[in-house]
Amino acid sequence: MSVLLSISGYSSTAWLDALQSALPDRRIVTEPASAKDGEIRYAVVWKQPEGLLASLPNLQAIFSIGAGVDHILRDQTLPDVPIARIVAEDLTGRMSEYVVWRVLDHLRRGFAYRAQQALGQWNERVQPAASALTVGIMGLGELGRDAAEKLKFFGFKLAGWSRTRKELPGVVCLAGDEELTDFLGMTDILVVLLPNTPATTGILDAGLLARLKRTSPLGGPVLINAGRGALQVEADILAALESGTLLEASLDVFETEPLPASSPLWRHPRVFVTPHAAASSDPDALVPLIARQIEACERGEPLQHLVDRRAGY
Amino acid sequence: MSVLLSISGYSSTAWLDALQSALPDRRIVTEPASAKDGEIRYAVVWKQPEGLLASLPNLQAIFSIGAGVDHILRDQTLPDVPIARIVAEDLTGRMSEYVVWRVLDHLRRGFAYRAQQALGQWNERVQPAASALTVGIMGLGELGRDAAEKLKFFGFKLAGWSRTRKELPGVVCLAGDEELTDFLGMTDILVVLLPNTPATTGILDAGLLARLKRTSPLGGPVLINAGRGALQVEADILAALESGTLLEASLDVFETEPLPASSPLWRHPRVFVTPHAAASSDPDALVPLIARQIEACERGEPLQHLVDRRAGY
Repeated sequence: MSVLLSISGYSSTAWLDALQSALPDRRIVTEPASAKDGEIRYAVVWKQPEGLLASLPNLQAIFSIGAGVDHILRDQTLPDVPIARIVAEDLTGRMSEYVVWRVLDHLRRGFAYRAQQALGQWNERVQPAASALTVGIMGLGELGRDAAEKLKFFGFKLAGWSRTRKELPGVVCLAGDEELTDFLGMTDILVVLLPNTPATTGILDAGLLARLKRTSPLGGPVLINAGRGALQVEADILAALESGTLLEASLDVFETEPLPASSPLWRHPRVFVTPHAAASSDPDALVPLIARQIEACERGEPLQHLVDRRAGY
Repeated sequence: MSVLLSISGYSSTAWLDALQSALPDRRIVTEPASAKDGEIRYAVVWKQPEGLLASLPNLQAIFSIGAGVDHILRDQTLPDVPIARIVAEDLTGRMSEYVVWRVLDHLRRGFAYRAQQALGQWNERVQPAASALTVGIMGLGELGRDAAEKLKFFGFKLAGWSRTRKELPGVVCLAGDEELTDFLGMTDILVVLLPNTPATTGILDAGLLARLKRTSPLGGPVLINAGRGALQVEADILAALESGTLLEASLDVFETEPLPASSPLWRHPRVFVTPHAAASSDPDALVPLIARQIEACERGEPLQHLVDRRAGY
């Protein structure tokens, strides 16, 4: 039995080392030709080449190295085997760190204070209380729930929105298209942790941004996207920043990654750009979780954290 | 009975309005001449002019509008009446917000990512896990304890140092001069919330900075000072940043405030400057606490949160 590792856009060295040390008795290969015919039973992937997985006759399961699986599902030839995502304390904790960091930076006027510092200006800015603001979280899976928990410690009011209704203590939970306008209308700081599915692609557009709360104590609503770049219409975000519809944005993901040098997002004074690093997968923390799933599967036990292909996540 | 409000360096308008509405039956004056002789029994102050309080024969108590009282105690003619500080959820929560915001910004490489963004560089930086770092808090009063609680949620290792020994669950608590070196040697991110007293003035000097942990996963130790500007020797901090003894700093307080335009701290790429705004006093939240103390005192009840003049806080 062999495991195929196929990672595009990142270095695969650390993943290869971690996989080999977590599964010392298994052969880990980075291309099918390195294994005997039919020997590959598991694939660990990030943006695998189209058709690669379809070429493996004995494939039992596919593992994403992150929380998202859109990068797997876009393969039109994807074989009909179970797909499992990563659900890891490490990944979830990192994402909540990013969310709290960005929310506090907007609340505490980081953009304004950095601009003042560049000018040598000593000038206290109005900093609304956390309790005067509602953070609205789109996407209430593992990541959204943990972020809500951590934000709660700081006294923010919390709202959440998801495709199907969830219940979270201390969070006003709304669901579905029919409640999206209500959700946006109460949101001062929008945190986006949605998966990319046909229903969410391009959801962060002019129409959505215009429905955010107009009377935010910050002077305007804020967008934080750590979900997927395909959710956002960057031209609309830039226009909203210019028109005052949006005050500031923290973006970790982009329509095209790496973000092209020509993008005005790089140079916008009220945008903070990180290179899809909000919750980077640490191979040493995550590979043991995949290895445990592979061993369980070999023993005939069921896989965990399976993806619903129809929902797309 | 009248109350004297004396605030230097800030606008007193909001405080005056809030005091008058919290104590509608009392006369609030901003200078002794506006009250009848001997009528002033309470003083609410920030950096009162030397000698002002000594001129009030019937003064019963002095209230600081913040957590610190060094601005009161420096008056050489201070009359021997009780001094009370503010202990308020609002003030404490704001300070913890600032501390967590700054710690996360250093952990998540905010300085490096902002520098990269200015250059249009897409490049993921090493971001150590919170659990790989020790945040060391100097000063374990109300503010230090609350900051430790909030940092704990993110998985940081925690150490604390205070003049007299404290006990806090999950925090390695060290105390006194003899344990300061041990405390510094385990600290990756130093958070300073000390009061300014004769024993702490200038404590943040070259000798102290050189004792911080040399092998931080961040690449060097970080200083966050939200205590008092008089604690820090700014020339030593700048030299430590240049020599690599210190990686980065977030400073909310300064030897001279406002920070002079000529200070190199404004322009240092690894220093973040805020204008003594980490936990600004919100008059509407804090004045009711002072008003309640005044009413209690009028009923002959004891004052709370009294200052130990000998300790200086």
